Amino acid sequence: MSILYDERVDGPLPRVDKPALLAELHAQIPDMEVLHNQEDLNPYECDGLSAYRTTPLLVVLPECLQQVQRLLQICHQRGVPVVARGAGTGLSGGALPLEQGVLLVLARLNKILDIDPGRRSARVQPGVRNLAISQAAAPYGLYYAPDPSSQIACSIGGNVAENAGGVHCLKYGLTVHNLFKLEVLTASGEHLTLGSDALDAPGFDLLALFTGSEGMLGIVTEVTVKLLPKPQVAKVLLASFDSVEKAGRAVGDIIAAGIIPGGLEMMDNLAIRAAEDFIHAGYPVEAEAILLCELDGVEADVQDECERVRAVLQQAGASQVRLARDEAERVKFWAGRKNAFPAVGRISPDYYCMDGTIPRRELPGVLKGIAELSAEYGLRVANVFHAGDGNMHPLILFDANQPGELGRAEAIGGRILELCVKVGGSITGEHGVGLEKINQMCSQFNSDELTLFHAVKAAFDPHCLLNPGKNIPTLHRCAEFGAMHVHHGRLPFPELERF
Amino acid sequence: MSILYDERVDGPLPRVDKPALLAELHAQIPDMEVLHNQEDLNPYECDGLSAYRTTPLLVVLPECLQQVQRLLQICHQRGVPVVARGAGTGLSGGALPLEQGVLLVLARLNKILDIDPGRRSARVQPGVRNLAISQAAAPYGLYYAPDPSSQIACSIGGNVAENAGGVHCLKYGLTVHNLFKLEVLTASGEHLTLGSDALDAPGFDLLALFTGSEGMLGIVTEVTVKLLPKPQVAKVLLASFDSVEKAGRAVGDIIAAGIIPGGLEMMDNLAIRAAEDFIHAGYPVEAEAILLCELDGVEADVQDECERVRAVLQQAGASQVRLARDEAERVKFWAGRKNAFPAVGRISPDYYCMDGTIPRRELPGVLKGIAELSAEYGLRVANVFHAGDGNMHPLILFDANQPGELGRAEAIGGRILELCVKVGGSITGEHGVGLEKINQMCSQFNSDELTLFHAVKAAFDPHCLLNPGKNIPTLHRCAEFGAMHVHHGRLPFPELERF
Repeated sequence: MSILYDERVDGPLPRVDKPALLAELHAQIPDMEVLHNQEDLNPYECDGLSAYRTTPLLVVLPECLQQVQRLLQICHQRGVPVVARGAGTGLSGGALPLEQGVLLVLARLNKILDIDPGRRSARVQPGVRNLAISQAAAPYGLYYAPDPSSQIACSIGGNVAENAGGVHCLKYGLTVHNLFKLEVLTASGEHLTLGSDALDAPGFDLLALFTGSEGMLGIVTEVTVKLLPKPQVAKVLLASFDSVEKAGRAVGDIIAAGIIPGGLEMMDNLAIRAAEDFIHAGYPVEAEAILLCELDGVEADVQDECERVRAVLQQAGASQVRLARDEAERVKFWAGRKNAFPAVGRISPDYYCMDGTIPRRELPGVLKGIAELSAEYGLRVANVFHAGDGNMHPLILFDANQPGELGRAEAIGGRILELCVKVGGSITGEHGVGLEKINQMCSQFNSDELTLFHAVKAAFDPHCLLNPGKNIPTLHRCAEFGAMHVHHGRLPFPELERF
Repeated sequence: MSILYDERVDGPLPRVDKPALLAELHAQIPDMEVLHNQEDLNPYECDGLSAYRTTPLLVVLPECLQQVQRLLQICHQRGVPVVARGAGTGLSGGALPLEQGVLLVLARLNKILDIDPGRRSARVQPGVRNLAISQAAAPYGLYYAPDPSSQIACSIGGNVAENAGGVHCLKYGLTVHNLFKLEVLTASGEHLTLGSDALDAPGFDLLALFTGSEGMLGIVTEVTVKLLPKPQVAKVLLASFDSVEKAGRAVGDIIAAGIIPGGLEMMDNLAIRAAEDFIHAGYPVEAEAILLCELDGVEADVQDECERVRAVLQQAGASQVRLARDEAERVKFWAGRKNAFPAVGRISPDYYCMDGTIPRRELPGVLKGIAELSAEYGLRVANVFHAGDGNMHPLILFDANQPGELGRAEAIGGRILELCVKVGGSITGEHGVGLEKINQMCSQFNSDELTLFHAVKAAFDPHCLLNPGKNIPTLHRCAEFGAMHVHHGRLPFPELERF
């Protein structure tokens, strides 16, 4: 396959003439706020993954489409890289700025342009917060389904960039399944419409290609999302287990019984205790694992499914199954889950959050493997995750002030992701690759596949100006990393498994 | 944007040295059947769109992956174009052969490799028929949801190439929403895995990009599809209306009431009469339009939804609403719909099937517009279509033996597609662009968007060997066609609307 990607993305980026760029931006886009002093730039030196930090060359905060377009044209002409940033809640360093690049903050493009209840859609600017869409749709009995834990803060533009998931994605799909249309600008400032107002569009499916592309193919300027009717009722079952493997098996049993819950989440003992201490959700602190299973829909259907799920859980060896007795308890059960990450933050100075996805049937084995790795490395690992879609979030607990612990945390993290790939899974579910998992991409994909990714990138952005160095590793980087290629679970070189 | 596409796709393709190619194929792939005599080639001169016919240079019928790969390598080396063909049931000429190209028939790659009830997936070769997957999954209580009318004959590889739909797609999604993973070969014979065994995969979403790409990006050699549990019950309501507009409005009302039916189909009087004469389905022949609404799920839920849909239909002005009294009548109601195309074939020497998709709210207006065009051109148009997802199939009735009628049929067809684009819809829902609708692509997309499509094509197939000249028009072709650009419903040059 022909090599189309730009080797420079791994090397140092060319130096930008900052004063000249600044002068041109002031002259050409006088109304746009541009930050350029060190103290103003500091808050933008990282996103939700605080382990990596870089001061951007400049930060721009456009307030309208025209400013974004003009900015892109100027940067394109000057060959200046551009990194887009939404709310900065991403967990893989996807919005990490470049020292020799502009950070394009889209937070001020935050208007809800249209809610169309007949068509069940909302047309919004990229800086609109995820939850704000559901709030605006609520008077019509509608909501936007994908619900990342950060939904109070994260923006829909960032959700598109990362193809964000959440608790409800098992039943209602990822971001890509909940979009009608995107308006985007290319690296050179050209305007494209991807998707359509109808349910299908001819030509290649660039809407899907763009979703999850981590700001590498273009800048989202408008998003038309699908809205769903709010379910009449939602009920939650909380099941306790005396082993994580049993809980893992129960997950597969529920799906195999023909039930797709609105949410199906799992927490292990460490996570249960941390959440209970923090939120007092009423979790059974002695349990080795719990499952939270939400069933939503019309009353009669939910009633029926609750009984069927209860039977499956008991059959799978649950020591206790409790139905949240009212809406207040249901909300409490979820509050524990949704605050599990900060809760774990209270019991450990630092933690490292992984995001592997595996086929559901592999859950018991992978959970066992994680426990073994935890013992081997002497680091605690809390598991709290979207069990129904096999999207795991092992939280590796460590203390960065203890010499060697950060290194051990990174090493066990790598081993866990390897384990995910080995059983046919992937190195990221909903958090994206960004910078954090770029080396693991070398194990997920072979060189033909990576080359194709670069060729697709070049089709949109031939000069590699948008978010260079993220998401897709160069073959050069993979070679340096050790060409550790575990291709879809089949290890060509078993000796490399050591990593 | 840089121009990457190959102008040659509109010109005559270079002459291939047939004897030399034939000799090499015999020598290198001795076990593969190769057809090269005129009488053997004749059956392959068209797909389901019989209006276009070309005799292929050669037809190859590989029986294993290795033969396909070797064939692609040889053709790549010699610069010979390759057109893939599944069952040949496509309706847009997507599998129309090239005089100077090899037709790669994948029908003999027809093994079901694996059914995994725990994961609810089936791994099959591309030549497996759509219905055969559901039949193989039936013992596990599972089925494959997308159901094109041709499902008895069409192959899953072709379904992937066209992103095929069907009656159930409103609720269960198109082909792209029902896939886990594709194994594909590129134009040069390189093997790629797109998607994963888990629910998500990192990197760009090439699985979605590939689905619906009409054989232009690679050759599918293995498909892993999602299987769904068979609904416990399915019930069908048949509603009669005294105007097509009322029926069109009722469609939107059902969806707005928060109900997603398993199928929601519409037929107008001409289609009703034709189907009733042919199948004796029990349709009301005096009705101007009928809606067939299927509700599926668990008993209690379906019961509840039936009552709600009945109320909505009566509110919308249905003159009669009948629930199929038993499974036999339900099957009969659907038989009339599924045989509507051949039924219309019995009342007219020829018909021309369109495939526009529009936002649901536009149904009443577009149906009225079609009736007006029908009167203007003096040709009958039967409407029978997937109303729930706005995917229209106007059948234009004509007699090719009457001078001028074919031309008038094509002209009214173009006008109907223009109308679809104008209201924010698209020129094809589930039948693909192929060769038939390539000119209309010039009105659906602007030149930046078309150029991007070509760049994406070039990322996969830089020498433009796979299915050249289909799906994506060159800018040159659009210019010759009159650069008729109706961009997402906004006509830049109203005078061009005449077409």
